[in-house]
Amino acid sequence: MTSATEVWVNGRLEPAVPAIDRGLAYGDGVFETLAVLDGEPLDLDLHLARLKRGLDRLGIGNVPLASLRAELCSRAAGHARAALKLIVTRGAGSRGYRVPAAAQPTRIVMLLDWPEYPSHYYEDGISAVVCRLRLGLNPALAGIKHLNRLEQVLARREWNDEHQEGLLMDSEGCVIEGVMSNVFLVRDKTLLTPDLARAGVEGIVREKLLARAPQLGIDVRVQALRMEDVSQAQGAFFCNSLIGLWPVRSLGGIRYPVPPLVRRLVPEFVPGLAAGRNS
Amino acid sequence: MTSATEVWVNGRLEPAVPAIDRGLAYGDGVFETLAVLDGEPLDLDLHLARLKRGLDRLGIGNVPLASLRAELCSRAAGHARAALKLIVTRGAGSRGYRVPAAAQPTRIVMLLDWPEYPSHYYEDGISAVVCRLRLGLNPALAGIKHLNRLEQVLARREWNDEHQEGLLMDSEGCVIEGVMSNVFLVRDKTLLTPDLARAGVEGIVREKLLARAPQLGIDVRVQALRMEDVSQAQGAFFCNSLIGLWPVRSLGGIRYPVPPLVRRLVPEFVPGLAAGRNS
Repeated sequence: MTSATEVWVNGRLEPAVPAIDRGLAYGDGVFETLAVLDGEPLDLDLHLARLKRGLDRLGIGNVPLASLRAELCSRAAGHARAALKLIVTRGAGSRGYRVPAAAQPTRIVMLLDWPEYPSHYYEDGISAVVCRLRLGLNPALAGIKHLNRLEQVLARREWNDEHQEGLLMDSEGCVIEGVMSNVFLVRDKTLLTPDLARAGVEGIVREKLLARAPQLGIDVRVQALRMEDVSQAQGAFFCNSLIGLWPVRSLGGIRYPVPPLVRRLVPEFVPGLAAGRNS
Repeated sequence: MTSATEVWVNGRLEPAVPAIDRGLAYGDGVFETLAVLDGEPLDLDLHLARLKRGLDRLGIGNVPLASLRAELCSRAAGHARAALKLIVTRGAGSRGYRVPAAAQPTRIVMLLDWPEYPSHYYEDGISAVVCRLRLGLNPALAGIKHLNRLEQVLARREWNDEHQEGLLMDSEGCVIEGVMSNVFLVRDKTLLTPDLARAGVEGIVREKLLARAPQLGIDVRVQALRMEDVSQAQGAFFCNSLIGLWPVRSLGGIRYPVPPLVRRLVPEFVPGLAAGRNS
């Protein structure tokens, strides 16, 4: 857990939100977590684009994205390393699922300490559990980073310190993602990652990797994956905006090497690693 | 939508919660909505028991139920008709799905205006739509009234004023519930209501009805139901703690009479109706 150092609500330094906010009542909103490096939020365009996709999906309008961008840049300024968490909810609403006609979105920006991870996570890989909890299928919510995260909270309770991540399947047994990250498998020099049309979050590092793989001469395929694919893989990794990319050395008892392909990707996708900050 | 007249957070008259509350970040908590009649919260034991089941399922401890009970009674006192909404979250948490070791639950109590419904809803029945949105399956979350309600928010956006409720199916096509209520079908003088082991909320009126039906000489069965069962039914109704019991006159274009069996149940399960308040 990272502790919040400062919190702004609708642009004001202010640690509280109205108890009648629909973000609290129903999880009616979306969020983003951004790495801050040398005073700048990383991948800001991609994060704001995903935020917008989520807001559109939920039908939350009236979010001033240009001023949100300016605010995130201003909060990041002067911080060598930090994390920013942004929450946008539908706003106040009291009781009843029906969306109020005059809802005014609430935006919350938190500046957080940078989570430091041991360098051996990046060199030797991490250990992950296969979670018993299965994700429900919901195409209307799949892909976006909404505030309904009880599945992740319950899944995270399946281990303590003995693992660094957990692998989640959906209710039909398809592999979907890590509890806090996306997952990729390595098979015959090809990267495989689950299709997220019915469950899961489309992560920003995943998106970057899908876009960048062709330039790196790496084949990558988005497809349905099952546990057989996991056990037959020659390597695996998890990725998100704060961890970057964690090779996997153990997943549900299966041992993996860190293939050269994955070793190549680590410096490309770990924020600040190229500058030696994680070494 | 009902507007909140007063809000207490952890027992203090206070309209805001910390922005780092996990209720907001992840929907990490549960809620109850209670009818208040003649200064008393109705079915308080049943609501607190369901709250406790939800807290246990999520692993949220340290909730002082006795003082919560006393608080709800005290908030209700002096109000002839009102609604109480209670939210209990895991408490503050900043970032990360992992549950903080020292989490202190947040409890929020809202006193709300009583929602008045037209008397013809109870006499002639209401109109309901069959929602396109399908509920994801998750046995770990099914039954409890948790704060992850985006499915209901999205489903409620499928109609405006032309209907009073929407019927939800799960991702496998089983009928589960209304957007804000439970559903019962009438077939050959038997009541049928969906099994909620994989999706849905176990409502308090549903629970009372299941317990009371034998005393009323009514057969009731909890089972898997599909749209064929809906179209073959001789009647249907929705129920929750605030509406009581709404007979259905139209559901996805199917017209129903209000069977005598349902007419009998209305005064039993509509708060305050016996005293003529809804007539």
